[in-house]
Amino acid sequence: MKLYSFFRSSASYRVRIALALKGLHYETISVPMRDNSHRSESYRKVNPQMRLPALALDDGNVLIQSLAIVEYLDEVYPEPRLLPADPIERAQVRAVAQIISCDIHPLNNTGTRGMLTSKFGADEKALNEWTAYWIHEGFNSIERLLQPGPYAFGDAITLADLCIVPQVYNAHRYNVPLDDYRKILAVDASARQHPAFAAAAPEAQPDAA
Amino acid sequence: MKLYSFFRSSASYRVRIALALKGLHYETISVPMRDNSHRSESYRKVNPQMRLPALALDDGNVLIQSLAIVEYLDEVYPEPRLLPADPIERAQVRAVAQIISCDIHPLNNTGTRGMLTSKFGADEKALNEWTAYWIHEGFNSIERLLQPGPYAFGDAITLADLCIVPQVYNAHRYNVPLDDYRKILAVDASARQHPAFAAAAPEAQPDAA
Repeated sequence: MKLYSFFRSSASYRVRIALALKGLHYETISVPMRDNSHRSESYRKVNPQMRLPALALDDGNVLIQSLAIVEYLDEVYPEPRLLPADPIERAQVRAVAQIISCDIHPLNNTGTRGMLTSKFGADEKALNEWTAYWIHEGFNSIERLLQPGPYAFGDAITLADLCIVPQVYNAHRYNVPLDDYRKILAVDASARQHPAFAAAAPEAQPDAA
Repeated sequence: MKLYSFFRSSASYRVRIALALKGLHYETISVPMRDNSHRSESYRKVNPQMRLPALALDDGNVLIQSLAIVEYLDEVYPEPRLLPADPIERAQVRAVAQIISCDIHPLNNTGTRGMLTSKFGADEKALNEWTAYWIHEGFNSIERLLQPGPYAFGDAITLADLCIVPQVYNAHRYNVPLDDYRKILAVDASARQHPAFAAAAPEAQPDAA
């Protein structure tokens, strides 16, 4: 497998954690977002959406969208399971993952921040306030939805943890204070102690700055 | 079951289609977004994220996030199946659903449009240009990902169709020209002929304006 990834892309980070947890070997193909490589015609042939990540399977299929990729990996390589067996618990885990991947991250990613600057003249301060607003909106609700730890939904790592850790990383990057989110911070601290999370971290990637 | 819904909420619309396709009876509890009812303390007790929809099950559990709810319904009431059996095809269907539910809709929904106005002084024209930009970004990629019809992925209705039809409805609402998306328009036309899509449409809801 080949993962089109960028060290700082938090959607790529989610998939890297899944691959590491399941012990799957893959080649990293770096797509440096800082020079807009993800918007190139050559990358468009890999992923028509021109976003990261994309996972190229050995049979030639290319999968896109981080949560769809993680669910695929969980279905084909079920050990360890990233979704509980019970349908209601699965829905609860997916809801937390989707609060982050639908309602926080797309509002704050590189493309959106760029559009806010070009279209509305947003400066660094305004961008950071905007970013913080969506993180607080999402984290306030997630803080109410988490269950006793050490992970987001108990003893087993789930898709929710794969989304929380990269989003906490992003919050730190933009200096968003997280003191109100004691449960989220505890989940982040527990998960980052796991070797798979460490292997997937931005600073551990071959293309880290 | 009780569905907390608003006729124009496109995330609610997705879940209404799933409920109708599976022939499930439910009570609609209208949460009128136009007077900000979704941000009330009483609704927060239902859904800590204060967004629509939420599905209250008969056993007291409340599910949130539209895609998580649809996957739950598909697992518990598997006829008709909204995801293919093959893991790669499932990933392809989920990817299209997520392009809409992560990368188009949250950029353009009521809360985001309100923030663009309050924070950046966006007027109606700028808001509509912003809305159109994200629809074009997403639809351009989806147009390349769809398979021969009549539905998004062939003869069977999938989660992708449940997301495409409400997003096309939103595009029409904001007068975004869709002439370049012949496949998406064909999928939308086919799906809307199905009685379940008609029953779930905004204008067919008890709280329609």
